[in-house]
Amino acid sequence: MSTSHQRSTPTQDSVRRQNLGALLRYVHVAGDTSRAELTNQLGLNRSTIGALTADLAGAGLIDEGTPQETGRAGRPSLVVRPRSSRVYGYALSIEVDRLRAARVGLGGKVLDSRELPRPHGTAVRDTVATLAGFVHDMQRATPPDGVFVGSGIAVSRMMRHADGVVRVLPAAVSAADGVAVAAGTSAAAAAGAAGIVADLGVALGAELGLDRPPVVGAVADLAALAEHTRGAAAGLDNVVHLHGDAGISAGIIADGRRVTGHGGHGGEVGHMVVNPQGRECGCGSRGCWEMEIARHVPLERDAVRACVDAARRGDPAARATLRQAADWLGFGVANLVNVFNPTAVVFGGALRELYLAGAAQVRGRLATMALPACREHLRLRTPLLGDDAPLVGAAELAFERLLADPLETADS
Amino acid sequence: MSTSHQRSTPTQDSVRRQNLGALLRYVHVAGDTSRAELTNQLGLNRSTIGALTADLAGAGLIDEGTPQETGRAGRPSLVVRPRSSRVYGYALSIEVDRLRAARVGLGGKVLDSRELPRPHGTAVRDTVATLAGFVHDMQRATPPDGVFVGSGIAVSRMMRHADGVVRVLPAAVSAADGVAVAAGTSAAAAAGAAGIVADLGVALGAELGLDRPPVVGAVADLAALAEHTRGAAAGLDNVVHLHGDAGISAGIIADGRRVTGHGGHGGEVGHMVVNPQGRECGCGSRGCWEMEIARHVPLERDAVRACVDAARRGDPAARATLRQAADWLGFGVANLVNVFNPTAVVFGGALRELYLAGAAQVRGRLATMALPACREHLRLRTPLLGDDAPLVGAAELAFERLLADPLETADS
Repeated sequence: MSTSHQRSTPTQDSVRRQNLGALLRYVHVAGDTSRAELTNQLGLNRSTIGALTADLAGAGLIDEGTPQETGRAGRPSLVVRPRSSRVYGYALSIEVDRLRAARVGLGGKVLDSRELPRPHGTAVRDTVATLAGFVHDMQRATPPDGVFVGSGIAVSRMMRHADGVVRVLPAAVSAADGVAVAAGTSAAAAAGAAGIVADLGVALGAELGLDRPPVVGAVADLAALAEHTRGAAAGLDNVVHLHGDAGISAGIIADGRRVTGHGGHGGEVGHMVVNPQGRECGCGSRGCWEMEIARHVPLERDAVRACVDAARRGDPAARATLRQAADWLGFGVANLVNVFNPTAVVFGGALRELYLAGAAQVRGRLATMALPACREHLRLRTPLLGDDAPLVGAAELAFERLLADPLETADS
Repeated sequence: MSTSHQRSTPTQDSVRRQNLGALLRYVHVAGDTSRAELTNQLGLNRSTIGALTADLAGAGLIDEGTPQETGRAGRPSLVVRPRSSRVYGYALSIEVDRLRAARVGLGGKVLDSRELPRPHGTAVRDTVATLAGFVHDMQRATPPDGVFVGSGIAVSRMMRHADGVVRVLPAAVSAADGVAVAAGTSAAAAAGAAGIVADLGVALGAELGLDRPPVVGAVADLAALAEHTRGAAAGLDNVVHLHGDAGISAGIIADGRRVTGHGGHGGEVGHMVVNPQGRECGCGSRGCWEMEIARHVPLERDAVRACVDAARRGDPAARATLRQAADWLGFGVANLVNVFNPTAVVFGGALRELYLAGAAQVRGRLATMALPACREHLRLRTPLLGDDAPLVGAAELAFERLLADPLETADS
């Protein structure tokens, strides 16, 4: 009889590791937390919390101390703090117009950061050396007792794969990434051009000499993760986070979990066709949602801002244009609300200002197009983390392994 | 210090319960399974499997025996069988044109069933007595040692709530459910009419004298659950299951989990607007996906079949009509593929025949409108369970509690 698939029986050890992860995750998200609050929030008794914090403190992941003066009588509960200055990961971000990197401490604290503009036309594969340079530079300033736990990369306007393979979307990124795609190409033909696949995580991991390559995610997905973890959608379990950046992609959270599809390519909501008579899109289709907005106002922050400014000055053409763009924004949002029944839609990137200027149009479309039950508890929000969301989300990827199994990762 | 939130520490007991659930679920889905296969598939060692099967057998949930003659030499591994004739739940289904009930044994075996047409115009609340009658009738034929573990209901064309509250969708079901809604009403106005809320699960639970009301799900969600558990989408983790039945709703599986949205109202993909110049929909919007198909061929099985038959006889008008309807079908499917990056789209209900007759149109739309990466591993499928899928899915709801914690549920 084959024994090759036999593993050892899960024991109490797996429960302990699960509890260690839950406690460390709580402190990572909430920051300094009293033992009393941990006892209540995690549903564990005081002696268990004491044993878990001792284990985590022993591994150098947290420390404990007395809280700030509260002015209340009685002996205060010890406060558990993430060791942000010691335990860290690297967060990297390849955006349309810039490259960023940060050394981020447990608890989400940015300890160090680097940024450079991304020259127009730089291919993703040519960003690896710059990003590796950022990391090497930050490594030199890292204290010798620092514990590195992982790294994550956010990639803008790329098709991404759950296993870290980044595939360049042919049309939309052709200019920025130097992929030659003939105008008017069909999506079927473009599939060939899309065959330019760069295993970004592996390439960067090799350049950095890491055993474990950085985890790769799309900007929209990681912005959603960031806003869901510590931003505008914190505490909300069904979230559609829209990211406008040349086109529109979405990060989806359903029941508290990221929904990215089979290969991690989901959330391409900008290519949901909303108008069969609409404008031709670079993807080979016609009337894609992002094109119907962009034919009024280009989905770039500066363009939206210029239009909003002109409208504020009373320019009637700018006002009309803005109304039409916001009307199309609401059109697609209503469709997504019927599909997902979310509690929050977050308008990120270039969509933030478009939404703020055209909230009435967006709400109007929701009122007529979204089913009452699907929009019943819906909140419309703008990001709390602003432009840092993708980088913050990349840091969350960096910490994922540690939080799943704290002692194993900290020891390795 | 408050102790009201303190629970006992999870112990080895929780691991054991998890393993019992995993083993029972495996046998429930796969049917008779050898101990050797369980050892391999569950990644547990032989003595653990032996202890778990002894526990489950002691609770009367499984039994063990020697397998059928295999013709192979050597002592055969014991076979574990779900006790389908003893352990059972009730599955109920309120469809547009009929009411069904089944007593289903562990393992998904239908032990008994009842069915009646649903008279046109019968309100959902008026189906409770009929369904309760079905159950009482089947109860009389149940052996005295039978163990009842739960019940589930599939409700067609209803808005449903995760907590079992069923809300009637105003426009689309107004005829069938006797809800008076003025023609041309806006969705906002209809929200008032939609205030007719029937807590179907509770009503039926009371009628049946059950402590625990049946779990309520939408037909599309439960058909998706059924096809994912033991049908066309078994083993596939990202599934869009479309159910055509007067309109179109979807059951979504992402990473193996059902995605139903905050209140359980998600999946209303039929009300995704795909044509701003389209036909007015009963929901108050215009150009909803289901309307754009239905203006060519009504989304009812008989209507689709009649059109397909006429097209087969060579009727050119029927052929053109079918092509246009299938083209619109592909249009919406491509949108959903861009949003979800699924591995399977399943065409259920009235969409089955429309897809089979117009697969070329559907594939054509996918080729031009779905991004290559989003459709890369996509399979288009028809249901394996046919008309039984909602009832099979309702049975899966009935067993969910048992499979999460077998001994607790079987003992209670």
